[in-house]
Amino acid sequence: MLEEQIIADILKAKKDVGGIDKVFFTACGGSIAAFYPCKFLLESESRKLRRIGYYSANEFVHATPASLDKNSLVIACSHQGTTPETIEAIKLARSKGASTIAFSYAEGSEITKYGDRTIIYEWGPASSEAQQKASKGLRIAIEVLNQLEGWKYYDAAMKGFEALDSVVTRAKEMVRPAARKFAQENALEKLIYTIGSGASFGSAYIEDICILKEMQWIHSSSIHSGEFFHGPLEIADTQTPFLLFLSEGRTRPLDERVLSFLKRYAAKIYTIDVRDLGINVIDDTVSEYFSPLVLTNIVALYNEELAYIRKHPLMTRRYMWKVKY
Amino acid sequence: MLEEQIIADILKAKKDVGGIDKVFFTACGGSIAAFYPCKFLLESESRKLRRIGYYSANEFVHATPASLDKNSLVIACSHQGTTPETIEAIKLARSKGASTIAFSYAEGSEITKYGDRTIIYEWGPASSEAQQKASKGLRIAIEVLNQLEGWKYYDAAMKGFEALDSVVTRAKEMVRPAARKFAQENALEKLIYTIGSGASFGSAYIEDICILKEMQWIHSSSIHSGEFFHGPLEIADTQTPFLLFLSEGRTRPLDERVLSFLKRYAAKIYTIDVRDLGINVIDDTVSEYFSPLVLTNIVALYNEELAYIRKHPLMTRRYMWKVKY
Repeated sequence: MLEEQIIADILKAKKDVGGIDKVFFTACGGSIAAFYPCKFLLESESRKLRRIGYYSANEFVHATPASLDKNSLVIACSHQGTTPETIEAIKLARSKGASTIAFSYAEGSEITKYGDRTIIYEWGPASSEAQQKASKGLRIAIEVLNQLEGWKYYDAAMKGFEALDSVVTRAKEMVRPAARKFAQENALEKLIYTIGSGASFGSAYIEDICILKEMQWIHSSSIHSGEFFHGPLEIADTQTPFLLFLSEGRTRPLDERVLSFLKRYAAKIYTIDVRDLGINVIDDTVSEYFSPLVLTNIVALYNEELAYIRKHPLMTRRYMWKVKY
Repeated sequence: MLEEQIIADILKAKKDVGGIDKVFFTACGGSIAAFYPCKFLLESESRKLRRIGYYSANEFVHATPASLDKNSLVIACSHQGTTPETIEAIKLARSKGASTIAFSYAEGSEITKYGDRTIIYEWGPASSEAQQKASKGLRIAIEVLNQLEGWKYYDAAMKGFEALDSVVTRAKEMVRPAARKFAQENALEKLIYTIGSGASFGSAYIEDICILKEMQWIHSSSIHSGEFFHGPLEIADTQTPFLLFLSEGRTRPLDERVLSFLKRYAAKIYTIDVRDLGINVIDDTVSEYFSPLVLTNIVALYNEELAYIRKHPLMTRRYMWKVKY
C-alpha cells in the first residue's frame, strides 16, 4: 500500500538523525478537521510519540511550537493545494528540517512542492470513501502508530478500510428519506447545532463551520457531547434544532446521554447513528475510528437536500473566492 | 510559592520511577477551558514533555489515553469539587499510578480527596485575579515547564503574576462604559459569536458555552481567529453580532485580520483588546499567556451588564441543578 511505503520511507530517511518522534497535523477549516480522527487515534493509542500537534495553519505559523524539529513529521492538507496559510506552514516545517507529507486533491498543485511525499486524494460524490482525505489521513496515522510502536488492531483497521466503501454505499441508500425530511423541516431555520464526540467530534465541527456557516449561511455551533452538560444544555428548548452524530465505540455513551436529554427537553432532534448505518461490519476494536468517515459521507446527503430545498447551492459564497482578505 | 513547592514535591516523589514526562488536564466546561492557556503554553514552549493532554472529563474516562501511567501528572478541576465526571477522571488517574493535582474553590470538597496535592483558588468579583483558577493553573504549568526543562521567560512570567491584579483593576475602571453599551445594544439579540486565538481561544470558548449559552440562553459559537477565514466568514453580515477578543503576542495578527474583515462586512462588532487595557506593563515575551486572564476578568463586566439589562441573572438555570441527567 502507498501509505505504508510512505511512512516506511520517511522513517528510513530519518534513521540516522534519531527517527520520527513527533507528528503535527496542520491545515485550515475542513482540511484540519479531516485530520481530527488522526489526532484522536494517536492521542488515544500512542505510548511513544513525544508530541501530537493539531493546528490551524496560521496559528502554527505565528506561534510555532518550540519542539518542531528534524524529528518531526508534519502532515499538511490543502484541498486545492493553494491555501496560503497552509503553504506557509509546510514551508516552515521544511525550514526546521521536519519531514513533510502534503495532502491535496490537485496533482501538481503548489502544496505538493513542499511535501517530501504527496497524497493525492479523491473527493466528490463519485469518489471511493477509502480514497478521500479523511480516510487517507487515518491510514497515514495508523501507519505511523504501527510502524513506530506496533498496534494490535492494525489488521482489524485494514479490514475496516476494505469494508468502508460498501458500508457507505449501503448507508447512502438507507438515509435519503431521513435526509429529505431533515431538509424539509429545517429549510427555514436560522440556526442548527451539531453535536458529536470522540473521533467524530471533527465531523460535527466540519458540518458546523464548512457546511452550515460557509455553504448555507445558517448559524451553527459544534458542541462536544461531553461538554454538552456543562453549559450548552441550557439552550435546549422545543424551538432549537440539534443534529446529533452517534458514533460507535468508547464515547458512544456520551452521545447517548445527550440524546436522552434532548428527547426530554427538545423537539427538533435529528440523529445520524452509525450503528443504524451498518458500521458494525467493521470490527468493534476500530469502528470508532471509522465512525467519522461514515458520518461525513452520510451527512453530505443531508446537506445536498438542504441546499436543494433552500435554493442555496453548496458552492454559493459571498466573500470566499470573491473578495480579498 | 505554593505552586513551585507542589511541583517540586511531585517531581521528587516520582524521581525513583522515572519522573513526570506527561501532563493531562481534565475537567468540564469552564473548568477545562480555564486550563486552555496551560495547554497552549506547554504545547508551544515545551521540548521535553512526551504528552500534553486536554480532555473533557467524560471523554478522558471513556476513551482513556493508553499513555496514562505512573509518569503522568493529571491536573483536574471542579469548581464546587463535586462534578461527577471529573471525580471519575481523577480517580482513574490515581488508579493508573499518575500523580494528581485537584483544583477547586471549595476546601475539603470531594475532588480534593483524590488530589496528591490540592489547589484551592479564589473566585468572584472580590477575588484577586492572580489567585483565580486560570492564574493558578498557568502558574502550575509554568512550574512544570521550568522545573522539567528550564524556561527562559520564567522571571518575566513571575513579574507578570505580580502585575496582574493592578492591570485588571485599572482595566475594570476603563471598560464599564463599553460594557454597558454592549449590554444595551445586545439586550434583544438571539445570537452572539465570540472569536479569539492563541492562549485566549479558551476565553472565547468560556464566553460562548458558560456565559452566553448557559447563563443567558443566547445562542453562540466560539470561532478561532485562524479558522474564521476558512468557513465562518460567510455568516458575517450587518445583522450578526461578533465579540472579538484581541490578544497580545504572536497570534495577534490573526485577531487583527478578523477585525479588519469585520469592519468591512459586519456592523455589530465588539472588541475587547488587551492592548487598550494595559497588558503591556507585562513583558512582551509572556503577555500572550496573560491575555486570557485579563480577558476573562474584563468580559465578566460585560456579562454583568448584559444580565442586568436583560433581567436574566447569571445564576438563572432551567436544567442545571434542577433536573437529573
